[in-house]
Amino acid sequence: MLRLHDYLPSGNGYKVRLLLTQLGLAFERINYDIDRGETRTPQFLRKNPNGRVPVLELEEGRFLAESDAILVYLAEGTPLLPQDRFARAQVLQWLLFEQYSHEPNIATLRYWITHKLLDEERRAMIPAKRRAGYAALEVMERHLDGRRFFVGERYSIADIALYAYTHVAEEGEFNLAGYPMVKAWLARVAAEPRHIPITEG
Amino acid sequence: MLRLHDYLPSGNGYKVRLLLTQLGLAFERINYDIDRGETRTPQFLRKNPNGRVPVLELEEGRFLAESDAILVYLAEGTPLLPQDRFARAQVLQWLLFEQYSHEPNIATLRYWITHKLLDEERRAMIPAKRRAGYAALEVMERHLDGRRFFVGERYSIADIALYAYTHVAEEGEFNLAGYPMVKAWLARVAAEPRHIPITEG
Repeated sequence: MLRLHDYLPSGNGYKVRLLLTQLGLAFERINYDIDRGETRTPQFLRKNPNGRVPVLELEEGRFLAESDAILVYLAEGTPLLPQDRFARAQVLQWLLFEQYSHEPNIATLRYWITHKLLDEERRAMIPAKRRAGYAALEVMERHLDGRRFFVGERYSIADIALYAYTHVAEEGEFNLAGYPMVKAWLARVAAEPRHIPITEG
Repeated sequence: MLRLHDYLPSGNGYKVRLLLTQLGLAFERINYDIDRGETRTPQFLRKNPNGRVPVLELEEGRFLAESDAILVYLAEGTPLLPQDRFARAQVLQWLLFEQYSHEPNIATLRYWITHKLLDEERRAMIPAKRRAGYAALEVMERHLDGRRFFVGERYSIADIALYAYTHVAEEGEFNLAGYPMVKAWLARVAAEPRHIPITEG
């Protein structure tokens, strides 16, 4: 059985849980407390040398890290990843946008605020992350104007990846009131069959 | 003909130039001065709403952004992207590592330093980026211990993506002296057929 090395509040972990559930794939979930350094132990670093969840264990000793790489791996051959070469590249484009322009701002502020990790160094980084996070939401808002989903008018792993931290952006004190297209898209994603909340393991 | 919307000193642009050259694909390069806001004009934002180079124009009006998505698109069906499903996922894992853990630290410090952009806000962010950049180099050093290339012992787009900013890390004041495996790998990548330097358009 697939094993997911995970941390329940993690949006990156949630992406994988949501996809596994929607694909009907059984998995065992193993939880790590990232605040207590449980992903930086020698045992964990053998699974992912970068010391981060999620890690998917495909079989004994075969590990895959990076949430969006796991999404592509699992969605291969399913309706959640297009077959067409250009459409696949567009999905990848949004996955990379998510990890570069969205997650380090929107997810990181949520983590620092909800885990009370705001020391002086991090406080100095808030304004830049706040601006960049809103810039990412702006890009999403413009793209979703006239579209139902991110790529090819079909629900795909691009939507799963961007949904994960956008739907909890307010926990990081981002106000979504000015993003009606994003809010309507969040509702569409949440209405997909077999949707689960981030709190469900 | 393929058109690459690019900025010559950009490592993200260089990845695509290097791959296009090694695949023997002809392309036209259009240069933008990012310091003068040339990628934030309304015309450019129609190519990439995120306002960043590189953007590959596949045909009139068909654009693909995100350097690592462009690499996957172009390498599809070539020896630079494995066919095996797990090996492909490992390549993606390293591409996502590059954009999340490596580029925002190693490339960003190079950009701020070489372009003299260090205002007070950015200075406050240096220590965190310095630590995270060295942590990324550590992950690479450990992975390359006993390996010639990042995935499957063959040169792939994972190597191209990680080479782009690692080989100029010292321009961002990262010292590679403590990373002998990384330095040996840099030399192997530079010795691949049809290699070009970052300065070549």
